[in-house]
Amino acid sequence: MRGLAFLGDGTIGLVEREIPTAGPGEAVVRTTASLICTSDVHTVAGVLPVPAGRMLGHESVGVVHEIGDGVTSVQVGDRVAVNAVTPDGTCDYCQRGFTSQCGGALGGYRYTAQKDGNLAEYFHVNDADYNLAPIPEGLADEVAVYACDMLSTGFVGAENAHIPLGGTVAVFAQGAVGLSATLGARLLGAGLIIAVEGRPDRAALAKQFGADLVVDPSKGDAAEQIVEITGDGVDSAIEALGSQVTFEGCLRATRAGGTISNLGYHGEGGPTLTIPLDAFGLGMAGKTITTDLCPGGRDRMERLMRLLATGKVDPTPMTTHRFGIADAEEAFAVMRDKRDGVIKPLITY
Amino acid sequence: MRGLAFLGDGTIGLVEREIPTAGPGEAVVRTTASLICTSDVHTVAGVLPVPAGRMLGHESVGVVHEIGDGVTSVQVGDRVAVNAVTPDGTCDYCQRGFTSQCGGALGGYRYTAQKDGNLAEYFHVNDADYNLAPIPEGLADEVAVYACDMLSTGFVGAENAHIPLGGTVAVFAQGAVGLSATLGARLLGAGLIIAVEGRPDRAALAKQFGADLVVDPSKGDAAEQIVEITGDGVDSAIEALGSQVTFEGCLRATRAGGTISNLGYHGEGGPTLTIPLDAFGLGMAGKTITTDLCPGGRDRMERLMRLLATGKVDPTPMTTHRFGIADAEEAFAVMRDKRDGVIKPLITY
Amino acid sequence: MRGLAFLGDGTIGLVEREIPTAGPGEAVVRTTASLICTSDVHTVAGVLPVPAGRMLGHESVGVVHEIGDGVTSVQVGDRVAVNAVTPDGTCDYCQRGFTSQCGGALGGYRYTAQKDGNLAEYFHVNDADYNLAPIPEGLADEVAVYACDMLSTGFVGAENAHIPLGGTVAVFAQGAVGLSATLGARLLGAGLIIAVEGRPDRAALAKQFGADLVVDPSKGDAAEQIVEITGDGVDSAIEALGSQVTFEGCLRATRAGGTISNLGYHGEGGPTLTIPLDAFGLGMAGKTITTDLCPGGRDRMERLMRLLATGKVDPTPMTTHRFGIADAEEAFAVMRDKRDGVIKPLITY
Amino acid sequence: MRGLAFLGDGTIGLVEREIPTAGPGEAVVRTTASLICTSDVHTVAGVLPVPAGRMLGHESVGVVHEIGDGVTSVQVGDRVAVNAVTPDGTCDYCQRGFTSQCGGALGGYRYTAQKDGNLAEYFHVNDADYNLAPIPEGLADEVAVYACDMLSTGFVGAENAHIPLGGTVAVFAQGAVGLSATLGARLLGAGLIIAVEGRPDRAALAKQFGADLVVDPSKGDAAEQIVEITGDGVDSAIEALGSQVTFEGCLRATRAGGTISNLGYHGEGGPTLTIPLDAFGLGMAGKTITTDLCPGGRDRMERLMRLLATGKVDPTPMTTHRFGIADAEEAFAVMRDKRDGVIKPLITY
Repeated sequence: MRGLAFLGDGTIGLVEREIPTAGPGEAVVRTTASLICTSDVHTVAGVLPVPAGRMLGHESVGVVHEIGDGVTSVQVGDRVAVNAVTPDGTCDYCQRGFTSQCGGALGGYRYTAQKDGNLAEYFHVNDADYNLAPIPEGLADEVAVYACDMLSTGFVGAENAHIPLGGTVAVFAQGAVGLSATLGARLLGAGLIIAVEGRPDRAALAKQFGADLVVDPSKGDAAEQIVEITGDGVDSAIEALGSQVTFEGCLRATRAGGTISNLGYHGEGGPTLTIPLDAFGLGMAGKTITTDLCPGGRDRMERLMRLLATGKVDPTPMTTHRFGIADAEEAFAVMRDKRDGVIKPLITY
Repeated sequence: MRGLAFLGDGTIGLVEREIPTAGPGEAVVRTTASLICTSDVHTVAGVLPVPAGRMLGHESVGVVHEIGDGVTSVQVGDRVAVNAVTPDGTCDYCQRGFTSQCGGALGGYRYTAQKDGNLAEYFHVNDADYNLAPIPEGLADEVAVYACDMLSTGFVGAENAHIPLGGTVAVFAQGAVGLSATLGARLLGAGLIIAVEGRPDRAALAKQFGADLVVDPSKGDAAEQIVEITGDGVDSAIEALGSQVTFEGCLRATRAGGTISNLGYHGEGGPTLTIPLDAFGLGMAGKTITTDLCPGGRDRMERLMRLLATGKVDPTPMTTHRFGIADAEEAFAVMRDKRDGVIKPLITY
Repeated sequence: MRGLAFLGDGTIGLVEREIPTAGPGEAVVRTTASLICTSDVHTVAGVLPVPAGRMLGHESVGVVHEIGDGVTSVQVGDRVAVNAVTPDGTCDYCQRGFTSQCGGALGGYRYTAQKDGNLAEYFHVNDADYNLAPIPEGLADEVAVYACDMLSTGFVGAENAHIPLGGTVAVFAQGAVGLSATLGARLLGAGLIIAVEGRPDRAALAKQFGADLVVDPSKGDAAEQIVEITGDGVDSAIEALGSQVTFEGCLRATRAGGTISNLGYHGEGGPTLTIPLDAFGLGMAGKTITTDLCPGGRDRMERLMRLLATGKVDPTPMTTHRFGIADAEEAFAVMRDKRDGVIKPLITY
Repeated sequence: MRGLAFLGDGTIGLVEREIPTAGPGEAVVRTTASLICTSDVHTVAGVLPVPAGRMLGHESVGVVHEIGDGVTSVQVGDRVAVNAVTPDGTCDYCQRGFTSQCGGALGGYRYTAQKDGNLAEYFHVNDADYNLAPIPEGLADEVAVYACDMLSTGFVGAENAHIPLGGTVAVFAQGAVGLSATLGARLLGAGLIIAVEGRPDRAALAKQFGADLVVDPSKGDAAEQIVEITGDGVDSAIEALGSQVTFEGCLRATRAGGTISNLGYHGEGGPTLTIPLDAFGLGMAGKTITTDLCPGGRDRMERLMRLLATGKVDPTPMTTHRFGIADAEEAFAVMRDKRDGVIKPLITY
């Protein structure tokens, strides 16, 4: 089978591999659709260290190709989606619901980080009964694939933001995760959604996804603009970039008692993040900072796909580019170089 | 009447004043017991800027001396406790339950910060029906006074720590607020309470208040000791000092998915707090940071005093020193200089 | 001024009255738009006993006509909305957030129940700073008036239903409250919304408001139909009628671990409601039953009106009829007799 | 091996059986301590129908005797506790945290209900990694065994009661579950705990376990007594008997906005429970009714045993009788006939 692998020193390549096999409780899926993620770019750039030869990708759906002993929830031939995070469902973290932290910090994130990723014609699934989610009839694979990471991550950002019904929320940065968080804020009853984004194409998409206003950070400090619009800041802010500037902007834009929900991966900056104490009320303004990584598990995937199947959410305007697996190297380059207004390149097989 | 006032330039003094009067919806209380707080020391040191002549104090109970028009919940002569925070109960923040942020960040904190404090023979109470809490029969004033700040603050630290039933919690620093947080963690079902404290007398009190173990930060990094004891860190950590070292210790001591509850006032350090990204899982380890200031209001005060009246909590071992109001200057000096193992000096009238 | 009053023995009439006046902390509003509620019909029918001569109505908006001493949040001339429930914001219930239970069970419901209602040219508002919510510029009075009861009640039904993100919910009955609950379920991230309704016009409106499916109870037991559709029942069910049949249907339609959120007023049936123990798992199926009455207060009203002002919710298709205040008797009769597919009659002044 | 089995028609007997074996992911435990439960009595009485020959018991701890393929969390020889409820950890219900409803209503309750119970010298454990909880060093088996059902059930009753910090709670009936709920209410920060119990020995134990007051239902209506004591009812009430009288008492004793947490098994009464509408505020008093069955899983067991190991909870005063397995028939008879003030008979091996 073919797949896109990290080949060391910032390089990638389409490689040939054996189709994986399914041990007890495991499964193998024949891939039908994948999305490339900025995390793949980070990995290749060396920010997330993995051995050369490791397959990339963690956003894929497909058809069950093989099931191991003891797998009962699906059959070969079923269309399934698998979250980017594949918890075992058994460890203490999972038993409390922290599936992304399976076995320890970020431990549920296995594809690429701990084993081959799924930007490949076939991929392996651990703890299949916990992780394989049947795709509802009538829901296209290239739509369902958004549940694997984008919607699960973006929505948990909105969930963790504790937006009051009809409350105000700012979403800092409108890349794929930020756009998904905007969709999530809209879905969860926000009254006023302010997107922070300087690029016109992303600003337009943010509005299409539910943002009421877009603040352009190139036109002045984003937090100040938000405070001016709202009077005393937003109830909730979502950080969807992973930078000191946006993190700090979230703190400054949020009013006392509010919540800052971090989605951004802060691995590209320095070894620390800084909290300005004035914006933090010297540690007493009742502000909360939450953080998370894409939550996994079949049950959540089923709920996310229900939202897609009933048409309540449509993430497909994020699909700016389409490639066959044969052109995956080109797809990766588009994503890496942020060419042509790319948001998500879709790979089909 | 006499009271202890800030006189400018780091000085204090017992001063004579007119007894305050009660406008509509207000009340005046004749004080029977007060506690001195480290915040008073901060104020005099200039960390919390207030005009010279401002009365100190925010932890006082007494007897209703006068009520203004429209006050219906108490009568002259009733024994009452008043929280350090006296919200109006009406603003948007209060309507959502953020009483300490009344009208904006830290806005519920009126005594000394916005008007005369209550380390005085009489004190004024705004929004009396919202803020005056009758002291239950049989509960001594010098016990009830702990509800005004110490228990409300310490307990909200434990509440915000989201300690799972039977979970593990570390309380960093065992001054009066930390000790109260330890009481709170015990009260709210923690399974293992680890106090971080180097002073033997405070360590002993922490154990008396419910700590199972005390980690001495002079014997090695506190977070490392906690991770060694627990295997993967505590479920929750409470910061009760207000320093970069303890804040960072809380982050390092807390396992993925856990909560860091900040109580410490960070006004004495630099203009920022620093989050080490490794301990923060690069913003994705599912850790939550919560912050708060003493929540106010009669209903909470009634519940706190019920815990005292039924003997479920006994904070009085924190009363290390006692003074009459005539000796309030000496009491303040003891607190300021941390003499004789002082934790809380009690003032009687 | 004119208003619609209960005149005893099931009769009503437009009456002349003095314009009310505003004491300290109170306000008087000149009405611009009102809605008639089924509760008004219940009251006139004697189900909710009030003295003859009592003004009807609790869903009104208008312009501030007079403010009493101490009112600071609005000025004469401001456009304002007032919730059907007008809590004092001060009692123990309010301090905990149970504004509808101000002072005791259902105590926040003052209009008609405890004092004159506001289906009149002017109306009185207690605790004005707590209860008067400015209507945002650009939001029409006849839209804002839906925040007074319909949206606050319908949405709290959805909030109390604890619908998981992308979860399934059934809303039993699609009168004005049920339709509002359907809007609320849509707003709060439900994945599949099943409306239960036999009338085609209401079924159509339910679909317009976000229902994915409508189950017709005349075509077979509604709960059985819902279990057949979902496999094992819905995650949440909302009772929006107030009858044994729908209450029991909710219990039977909800799967283990789910929530039944009651909005219906059960004053018209017998003195009891019956829980079938099989549907209740003998008291051990993890099902939760929640109940509520329209929550009040300015902050919530502001958030509800923000949802209207930003166009996220449009309840106006429920305005099936329009009348001037001079024709309020006719408007009431239309509502009482459920004529012409009436859902909400709007009164203008 | 020997075990106590249901033999049909209300009879029981000590029987000889093969030691069970462990398939993949399963384990077999050699029992060291068990408790007999009222549910065992219900089962034998035919209220909970099971086939003749089915082994009784669901509260047992012991030593790992055998592990099946793929079990990694324990080794043969480890001391372990297993909850009465043994979820698979994988189904949709488990993924949402409703472990007691594994696969459907009450589905997590497998021992006796779905397979042989564990009142036997050896017992089988499904999904061993999810369900086997190591007993902490220094914690005696006969203490740890209380985590299997009594503490998990009693505590979830207190958790589901949503007792405000320092709030008031009534626990109706002080059998083993009610006493455990009293322990739980004490553990979770209740300010005033009122036990409802007519038997003096149980009343005394309730006080030892944290009840501040005991109301004797033979001295007058319990709810009326509670309302008289509290003024307007308790914040929360826990039903720990399973009868119409106590369920209704809970509703009447709870104030508006409060919660009724049901623990009682209502299988012995009629097919319905009745809600008096006056006590329910006609469905609008903001009261919540919660229900549950003992939650399972290793993580919770570990937290419960931590509370035992650190001495925060001591349930052993409930061990009123002790028997060897050879005398299990006698032990059962004592429990069935409620002889000698029995609360829990302990079986050792």
